[in-house]
Formats: sequence, structure tokens, C-alpha cells
Amino acid sequence: MQESSLRHAEEINSYLKALRHDLREHERLKLLLYIASTISQEMKLDKLLTLIMDEVKQVLQCDRCSVFILDRERGELWSHVAHGEEEIRFAAHLGIAGHVVATGKVINIPDAYSDVRFNPNIDKQTGYRTQNILAAPMRNKMGEIIGVFQAINKFQGAFIREDEELLDAISAIAATQIENAQLYENQKKTFDSLVETLASTIDARDPLTAGHSKRIALYADELAKVLHLSDQEREILRISALLHDYGKIAVREAILTKDGRLTEEEFKHIQNHPQFTRVILQKINFSKELQQVPLIAASHHERIDGTGYPSGLRDEQIPPLSKILAVADVYDALTSKRHYRNRMRFLQVIDILIQGSGSHFDPFYVDAFKKIKLDRLVRILEDEYVEQLDPDDLTFMSKFDIVDLLAAQHNSKTFGAAKRLLRIFNKYYNRDYLHDRL
Amino acid sequence: MQESSLRHAEEINSYLKALRHDLREHERLKLLLYIASTISQEMKLDKLLTLIMDEVKQVLQCDRCSVFILDRERGELWSHVAHGEEEIRFAAHLGIAGHVVATGKVINIPDAYSDVRFNPNIDKQTGYRTQNILAAPMRNKMGEIIGVFQAINKFQGAFIREDEELLDAISAIAATQIENAQLYENQKKTFDSLVETLASTIDARDPLTAGHSKRIALYADELAKVLHLSDQEREILRISALLHDYGKIAVREAILTKDGRLTEEEFKHIQNHPQFTRVILQKINFSKELQQVPLIAASHHERIDGTGYPSGLRDEQIPPLSKILAVADVYDALTSKRHYRNRMRFLQVIDILIQGSGSHFDPFYVDAFKKIKLDRLVRILEDEYVEQLDPDDLTFMSKFDIVDLLAAQHNSKTFGAAKRLLRIFNKYYNRDYLHDRL
Repeated sequence: MQESSLRHAEEINSYLKALRHDLREHERLKLLLYIASTISQEMKLDKLLTLIMDEVKQVLQCDRCSVFILDRERGELWSHVAHGEEEIRFAAHLGIAGHVVATGKVINIPDAYSDVRFNPNIDKQTGYRTQNILAAPMRNKMGEIIGVFQAINKFQGAFIREDEELLDAISAIAATQIENAQLYENQKKTFDSLVETLASTIDARDPLTAGHSKRIALYADELAKVLHLSDQEREILRISALLHDYGKIAVREAILTKDGRLTEEEFKHIQNHPQFTRVILQKINFSKELQQVPLIAASHHERIDGTGYPSGLRDEQIPPLSKILAVADVYDALTSKRHYRNRMRFLQVIDILIQGSGSHFDPFYVDAFKKIKLDRLVRILEDEYVEQLDPDDLTFMSKFDIVDLLAAQHNSKTFGAAKRLLRIFNKYYNRDYLHDRL
Repeated sequence: MQESSLRHAEEINSYLKALRHDLREHERLKLLLYIASTISQEMKLDKLLTLIMDEVKQVLQCDRCSVFILDRERGELWSHVAHGEEEIRFAAHLGIAGHVVATGKVINIPDAYSDVRFNPNIDKQTGYRTQNILAAPMRNKMGEIIGVFQAINKFQGAFIREDEELLDAISAIAATQIENAQLYENQKKTFDSLVETLASTIDARDPLTAGHSKRIALYADELAKVLHLSDQEREILRISALLHDYGKIAVREAILTKDGRLTEEEFKHIQNHPQFTRVILQKINFSKELQQVPLIAASHHERIDGTGYPSGLRDEQIPPLSKILAVADVYDALTSKRHYRNRMRFLQVIDILIQGSGSHFDPFYVDAFKKIKLDRLVRILEDEYVEQLDPDDLTFMSKFDIVDLLAAQHNSKTFGAAKRLLRIFNKYYNRDYLHDRL
């Protein structure tokens, strides 16, 4: 009986052991499936990388995790948010991550400071103390290494064999989704640069408007930020702004670039351009989010009193984003330098916007425009010379908006800060700083 | 002792049961993880749908599987490859799939012909015999139904509870990836239509070249098909063809549309357009696959004897895809109708290509061009009137290429088929068919 009991006990023990193993394996699979389904939902590369790093930190129970992406063209590894901060880049053969790229093998270092492959310089710079590291290659479906996972400082003890296997399994899942996100991002970049190229080629047809479409997009985006518009609205606005004058491609060059006064007929021909913009942009198969672009882009010459063109829409009939374009469009036209003259005086420009408030422009957007910080205005105005702007001046101007500038104008005799503000802003607005360097 | 043995036996039994359950659950998780990792690798929507349907068929051990995608805008369900054939579309409330969309619930029908929701008409049309059906909604991360899974004819018996659960789990995984693929596809569509719009606006500046960029892209693609170029090469060629004249935006309109003979200086100015094309396209952040587009597009006026422009490249210095553009460009220019005249005679056009072979053109591509089927040529030539082409004529012409047509020309007195070929082709080429309808 004793023997039989013993046998039973052994059997039960072995069943229990198998069960425990299965359960562990089971938990692992559940975890992987959870991670796969979580990360497959994110197609924006930077968000995806943060998500992956957060998941890995939690799964491996460690303090930090970085994902380094291999840029084969430049022979570099980069990380968007290594340690949750800005992008870092380094030659693809350096450090632990470089070792992983070179060997294609997992590296598990239980004690960083006793391992020659570890470079303690970063710790020295950051004050962080690395104890242990687990690094694994990330491979795509073709088996090519596309990046490296690096987990640092396991909370309890060092990384174990099971962690290595887990990280390896996660790597495969992550690599696929990172490649998907890269594909998507590259396509978006191509689209964006195509739109920008279009915009600049249109502007280039008329030397007087060079850079106009880019600037109107930047001003409109500043307005969008003042108004806390959503990312999606900002994107619609940006594309609409860049393409708002595309219809000018159908305007006869002789009229577009005519030096003297336009005849009434010529003026009418030019006034067709928003309508051309609409017709052309409607041929583009915009995604659902960008469906409104043709209408918004084509309504930048409407006026809230209904006297605008091409459709003579009134106030609430005009898309709000077109109202933003109207303000930005006029502001840029008036503040653009000409070959033969400097910009219109700033106070006069603002006065024109205020005078047009309620007839040409929706007052709400003119008021919002006045809340744009002065450093932003100067950066856009002087886009071509942006490296020549004094960083201290920009920091100073970033504390004030147009409302402050107008107030300073009235108070310039009394306050030192007001004087300084006027002096610095005018230096850039009147382009005196360029003479400084000549 | 008996009692104790019994207790042991019961315990062991219950352990075994638990173990079996775990193992089954374990297999299920492994399967789901495998499916997740397989389908996450596919970003092309049509391939993805086929892949998902294949996986489900195998996992559920059934004869057929369809994925219906919900098109909310049109209120329709569609399937790319239902039953492995062409796209079908129907109102989103119809059939079993419509029930699933309306109720959001899984439908498991063990005997189709005894269920009122089943519509036997499709079986009648196709001769297929549906026995049992399992249909489940596909939901995205927001819980919205984006489509319906439909599995038909389980190999052994009907679908069971476990199949339902499995399909439900796969649905969630599939929905995410389908949305990713749709996102990617929509972006691609927007990009493509933007490029096409660009191309047509450029062509529109000069009435003589209306539609030219689109046609050169179509001719080039026919050449690509004759030469069995890869999908990627065809894509590079298509984009390059559509944008090859984009530099004309920088050519002065007065010269571009001048009626009389150009002065030497004016001609030189026009000859700058490929160089402008290159400069402009180089500003676009093309993906790695499309990096060659600016160079290929800009080299369409190079000649293999080195007398072309802008760079005077010789034979092997000219990118092969540019050599294709050169042939397609000249062919389209010569076969384009003008307001004041019909097309140049076809034999004369081909003669010019052959005469230019070895000096202007690479003979390899002229020979390939002659292998394009005549129905394809006619479709592109008469793109605007494509609905007026007689399908029977097209089918007939699809059996012959330019080589055949040239041979027919020599043999027209002897062979009936040759005569017919010449008569039909000339009817379209000389646009006599348009008079037929007037």
C-alpha cells in the first residue's frame, strides 16, 4: 500500500508539474496575444514605439526599455523616445545594441559594469545606474534585423532565460507592426512633400507670390493652435492652405504676372482661380478626413458680408476653416516684401484686418489672430533667414502677442519692456537685422 | 484502501480533465497567435482578405469562407473574392451577413435550407449546395462593426460552439489589420489621384497636349506588360510617366502655346522642361521604391546616340524605364489628333519609330512596342470614347499586335482575316466609327 501510495503521489506530482508548466506557457501565450492585438492597433510610428516600450517594461518587469530602429541607408541606429526623451542616433556598430546588430544574437548581461561591451558613459552623463541589460534583435518576416530591443534593470534580480524567450517572441510581433507603420509613414511623407512641391511650383509662377502658400499654411496653423483645433482639423487646414491657390495654374500667365493695372475682364479672369482650385481638387480622391479640402480651399476669397467670390457665401455659409484662410491670406499678402518696396507698416496691416472685421473677416478669427505670439509671426515672415534670427530675441518675443504689441505702441513712452518689444519686433519686421549682417 | 484508491482515481481524473481543457485552450491560443502574426504581415487589402479567408477555412475545417466589408457611406456590403471570384456588392441589410450587421450577433445555422434567413437563390445560380453557415460580425477597436465573416459547409457535421468562439477571436484580430490595410490603401489612392490630377493640369495648360501624360503612362504600362516588368518597376514607370512633363509648369506659357515657329532661343527654353521636371520632383520625399522617379521622368528626351537633352546621355547611361518613356512619348505625340487634322497615318508613325531605332530609340523597346496588342492601343488612343468601342471589335483586335498589322498590310490582297484586321483597326484609328454615330 505504501508503495502504491508513493506511486500515486509521484504521478500526481508529475501531473501537477506538467500542469504548472502548461499554465505558465498558457499565461505566456495569452500575454503575447494581448500584446499582438494591442500593438496592431497603432499605425503611428512614434506612438507605436512608445506603446511597445511600455508593454515590454511591464511584461519583463523592468525599469526601462528602448527600441532602436536600424536605418540601413545611414548605417545608424535611432530611437525616438529612448528613456522617454528626444531622438538619439548613433553608428549602427556601437554599444550593446550595435553588438546585437552585428551578431544577430540576444545579449543578457546580469552585471553591466563587469561586462566590457557595456559603455558606462551614458550613465555618467545621465546619472542613471545601469545594473543589468537584456538586448534582442528585432527581425522582420524576411529574417532581416530591423532594430534592437533593449530592456534595462529588472526589478527583481537579473533577466532570466524566460525573459529572453519572451522578448524574442515580442520582437517578431513588434517588427511586423513597426514595418507596417514605417510603410504608412513613408507614404504620408511622400504625399505631404508632393503637396508642398505643388504649392511651391504654383507660387513660383508669379515671383510676387513666392512662398505664399507655405506661409499661409503656417499662419493658419498658428491660428489653429490659438483656437485649440483638433489634429484632424489642423491637417485639413494645412492641406487646404497649401493648395488654396492651385487653381491659378488655369489662370493665364500674362494676366497673372501683368505689371500694370488689370482691366475689369482680366480681374474677373483672376477671380476664377478659387473656382478652378475647387474643380481641380475635387478630382483628387481625398480620404474621408480630407473630403472638405476642395470646398475649404476654394472659399478663401469669400467674405462674411456675402460680397466675396466665387460663390458670394455669407457668414455662416462659409466653412470656419476658410475664414481662417481668409485672414491668413490677407495678412501674408500685406506683409510680404516686394522687390521694389518693403512690407506694409505692421500697424497698417493690423488696421486693415480690424477694419475688415465684420465685413470681410469673421471678427472671431481676427481676434484669434491677434493672439498669435510674435516670435511665431517673425519666424514665418522671415522663413528664409530663420537661422539669422537671434534666439534671445525670439524667446523674448514668445512672451507677447499682437495685442501686447498694439498696447506697447500706445505705452512706448512709459514702459521699458514695451520699448524693447517694439524695438526688437521692428528690427525683424523692417528687416534691419539683415543690414546688420551685410 | 478502496476508498482512498477511489479518491486518488477521482483526483487524477479531474487533473486529467483540467489538463485536457488546458491543452485545448493552449492549442487555441497558439493558433490565434499564429493567425495574428501571419495576417499582420499583409498590408495589401485584397491579398489580406484572401489570406484571412484561407486561414479561416483551414482553422474551421470548412469548404468556403467569405469576408464581407461594410461600406457605411453606400450602405453596402462587399466582398473582393467571395467564393474566390470577382467582387460582389449588395445592400447591407440583405442575407445572413445583413442579419449579422443588423443584430451584431453570431449566427450559426446547422441546416441552411430549414432556416428562413437563408436565401437559396445564390445556390440556384451557382449550383453550389449550402448545408450549414456560421457568420460573425467583425468589430474594430471602437466596437463598430466593419464587416462580416461567413464560413460555409463544415467538413464534419455542423459548426459548434467552439468554432463560434474561435471565429469571434479571429474577427477581432482581422478587423484591426483590415482597418490598417484600408488606411494604407486610402492614402495610396489619395496619392495616386493627386499625381493624376497634377498630370492632367499640366497637360491642360496646352490644349495640344491634353491627356498626353495619362496616355503615355498607359502606353508605357503596356510596354511594361509585354516585357514582364515587376509590379514595382511598373509603379515607378507609371508615376514617372504621369509626371514626366511636370517641368513644363516652369516654361513660359507664351512659348508653350505659341502658334507659329519657335525661335532657337524659345526652343532652348522649352528644352529645359525635363531639367525643371527633375529639379521639382527631387523635392518630393519619394519612398525608397520610387527614388528613381525624378531621374527617369527627366530623361525622356535623351536619345541613345547621345544627341538628346537635357544631359546628352548615351545608350547604357539612359535608365531603361526612360527608354520606354521615349518610345511612348513620341508614339503618343504622333498619334494624337489635332484640332485641324487627324492623326498621322499609322504606318508613318511606326516607320518613324523604326527609323529612329538605334539613334533616337533603343531598338529593344521599339520591338517590344510592336508586340502591344491592337485592342490596347485603340483603347488608349480613344480613351475619351471608350464606351463607343465595339466589344466584338476589341476582342478581335486583342488577338493581333503591331507586327501582325504590318504583315496584314503586305498581305491584304490574299487573306480575309488580314483585310478584316486592317478594316477594323483603321475604323478606330481614323475615327470613322465616330461618324457612324453622328
